This record gives sequence, C-alpha cells and structure tokens, in this order.
Amino acid sequence: MRYAAIIEYDGSQFNGWQLQDDTRTVQGCVEEAFSKVADKPTRVITAGRTDTGVHACGQVIHFDTEVKRPNYSWQRGANSNLPDEVAVLWVNEVDPEFHARFKATGRTYRYVILNRQVRPTFLNQRVTWDHRSLDEGCMQKAADLLIGEHDFSAFRTIHCQAKNPVKDLRELTVERRREFIIITAQANAFLHHMVRNIVGVLMTIGAGEQPVAWARAILEGRQRTEGGVTAPADGLYLVGVEYPASFKIPRLSTDCGLW
Amino acid sequence: MRYAAIIEYDGSQFNGWQLQDDTRTVQGCVEEAFSKVADKPTRVITAGRTDTGVHACGQVIHFDTEVKRPNYSWQRGANSNLPDEVAVLWVNEVDPEFHARFKATGRTYRYVILNRQVRPTFLNQRVTWDHRSLDEGCMQKAADLLIGEHDFSAFRTIHCQAKNPVKDLRELTVERRREFIIITAQANAFLHHMVRNIVGVLMTIGAGEQPVAWARAILEGRQRTEGGVTAPADGLYLVGVEYPASFKIPRLSTDCGLW
Repeated sequence: MRYAAIIEYDGSQFNGWQLQDDTRTVQGCVEEAFSKVADKPTRVITAGRTDTGVHACGQVIHFDTEVKRPNYSWQRGANSNLPDEVAVLWVNEVDPEFHARFKATGRTYRYVILNRQVRPTFLNQRVTWDHRSLDEGCMQKAADLLIGEHDFSAFRTIHCQAKNPVKDLRELTVERRREFIIITAQANAFLHHMVRNIVGVLMTIGAGEQPVAWARAILEGRQRTEGGVTAPADGLYLVGVEYPASFKIPRLSTDCGLW
Repeated sequence: MRYAAIIEYDGSQFNGWQLQDDTRTVQGCVEEAFSKVADKPTRVITAGRTDTGVHACGQVIHFDTEVKRPNYSWQRGANSNLPDEVAVLWVNEVDPEFHARFKATGRTYRYVILNRQVRPTFLNQRVTWDHRSLDEGCMQKAADLLIGEHDFSAFRTIHCQAKNPVKDLRELTVERRREFIIITAQANAFLHHMVRNIVGVLMTIGAGEQPVAWARAILEGRQRTEGGVTAPADGLYLVGVEYPASFKIPRLSTDCGLW
C-alpha cells in the first residue's frame, strides 16, 4: 500500500529535511518513527526538501509498505515516536499512482518578518527580524512585477539542480499585521532559495534602498549576482502542497489564523 | 533619576522572573544588563513577577540610578548585553513618583491555546495544547460570569501571598482564530495563578465536561480545591501593565496582530 502524510516541524532544530549521516534531519526522524510503527525499515519521499532552519506546517510525504495498519494508527504511532519538534498532522492510504513530489502541481510558502526596532524573543528562529521600517505597499508593487511564468534564474542559488529555471509564480502577496509582515508565495515549483531570494529583494525595496522597478530589472537580468541578499531561513514556512483533487490530499493550512 | 522600561521575554528559558541564587531568572539577566550599562550594580522593580514558563511582551520595570545616559543608550546597551530570549522594547526617564508595581492600575494577560488533535511543533512551549474540541461560545459565556469585582479565592494558589483576595476582573474575552483560542484577561491586579486557574476552568467548560454555570459556582464557593486543574504556563503572556496617563508609559501590545 501507499500512504500519504502531512508533516509539521520546527526547522530550527534540524539540519534540513534530507537524510544525512551523523546529523539530525527531519527525514531521519520521520523515517525512524514510521519504521517503528511498521516494525520494518520505511523510506519516505517528500514533496520538497527544506533547508536548515526552514519550517513546515504542510509538508507532504508518501511511503510504501506491506504492513496493514489503520490510518489513525500510523499517525498516532508516528507521533508518539517523533521528537517534540515534528508532528504528523494527517495520514491516509492513497492511490498507488500518487507521488508526493511528481504529482504536486503547486507549493505554497509563507515568510514571516518581525518588523520593529528590537529583535524577537519568544519568536526567535521562528520569524526573520528586520529593524528597518518596511513599506509593505512598495513591497506588494514589486511583488506584482514578479507574478507569472518567468525564467527565475536571478533568484536561484548556484547550487540549484533544477533543469528548468522557468517557473509559474501564481501568487505573491505582502500583508502587514501590526509589527509583522507576511509574504505568501505560490508557484507550480520553486528553484533552490527562490523564495528567500525573492524576499531579500522585496525587503530591500521595502526599506527604500532600491526602487520598485528593481525587482523586474533583476528578474530580466537573470543573474543571481545582481539579486542582493538571501533572506534568512528563520521566517520561512512550507505551508502547503497542491495535488489534483482526485488524490484527496487535504489542504490544512490555506488559511493563516495566528500563523 | 528613575527610569522605566518595557521588557519582552521567552519565559520557557527561565526559572521565572524573580532573582534566585544558582538559577537563571529574567530579573537576574535584566539587572546584569542594566548594571553593565550603568557600570554599577542596578536593581530593578517589576510590575509583577511571572512564574517559570510564563512569557511577557509588555512587562514593566523601573530602576534608580545616578548614571546619566540617554534613553536610547539604556535600551541599546541593555539589549546588547541580554540573551536572545529577553529584549528591552522601550526605556524612558520617568517622574520619581512612578513605581512599576505600586502605581499600576491594571494588568493584561493573554493566554494562547492551540486547539487541535496534534501537539504543537514550532510553537512548542509558546502555546498550550488542548486536543479536546473546545467550544469558545460556552467559554465566553462562562467568562462573562466571572467579570466584575469578586473574591477570587477559588482561583488562587495556596502559595498566594496577597492580603486581599478581592480583585476587579474588568475584561475576560475568548476568541477563536482557526486552530487557536485566545483568552484576554484584564484586572486591577491578579492573585497568584489566577489567570491559569480561570483558564483551567474555562477549558473544562469548553470541553463540555462541566456546564457554563460551574464557573460561577466555583467563584462563589471560594475553595481552590473545587476549581480543577491549573492551565500550564506555556500559553500565558503578560501583555501589558496600565498606569495613570500622567506617567506616560506607552501600551505597546494592546492590539494582538499575529500574537
């Protein structure tokens, strides 16, 4: 059988998603937990690997197993074997055609900036701090210039392994809530560091250090070296992955209440 | 000169506010930071001591010093000497008549519950988790029964040292935001554990384990032993302290944006 699951985690406590020897990764913890429930080694495939420090409230994975358990037992069993920083929000048996990565039609990320003079305390490592007074109106205007299907080479790290730098950025919204600025980005797929590089540009523009049109100039230049700073991982959350409705993968985090 | 300051902290990293030997407290860190800026031992007086695990985004303190520094230098200097979990949001020289504790006319606390099946991850120790489906409408009806000036003996811990158990609870609101329930409590003063004991009762009623009228019965019984569980410290935030306007202490956190 093939099962799908939705995972939430605090990325500050891990060296990223991907399994590595001798270091704590989310994938390592999740595979260990499901392996304990199955009582057999169980590998998981993710919708998208997240970097060190990046959080998730809607990461999607799948795994194959010959072990028959109710959905509920997989979820409860995994959660009781996971550390505090990781939790399984949902598990369901799915169509064997489902694939967490290859069947995904879109990914949604959220980026949370604490925009005030003083650094965060209880939200340390959960938000990105910017002491500059950011103009969210300018940031939204710049964001609008990036929407659509483009070659996003200017926003990819040199380590990015994607074959095609053309992605369809369907949504890029900038919203202020008191001292917080929330940026939501939705695309068919993202290049490595694409969200953080876009956010870095928007923050520079929001701080008045570059004009709104700079966003478009960087996009069209297609040179990463022109794009300025990569925003820190702290404020980045993978909030959801989209699939064709027939796979019945729920969207748990489309609405952002407190988060 | 007398200075007032507003302090924010992550209480999960401290053994409460109050200075103690051989253990890490918020007061200890704050006094050490201001003492370094003053280059002299500096004691601080707080509006209210918080327990282990309780957070603050609007704690108020004052301190006396003969050292003359601009407000800005006190704030920046203290912040550069404080650990990541504590920050000074505001400092100002104040009327020598000001006293952080004795001049306070009110305190406001916020309690944040994550109300879903699965425990928190990146908000671990920053929210209180309740997996039971809580009815916020019932909780608000019960809250309404506690509003006003009452003998709150039923909601104080046996360790409470307050001479007078009569307090004026001016506001007690229960609001749902998606998976979060936010309870805001404002009173002239609170007894020890009063907010957490009130929240414990509201959660029990919200879970349907007691009727709405139980809140009033407990209040009138004045017996702590009848009041059920004390809600955990994790979700509790001291968000503000009120003073007569003449002292010009700002209210930084009256609005709850993301938090």
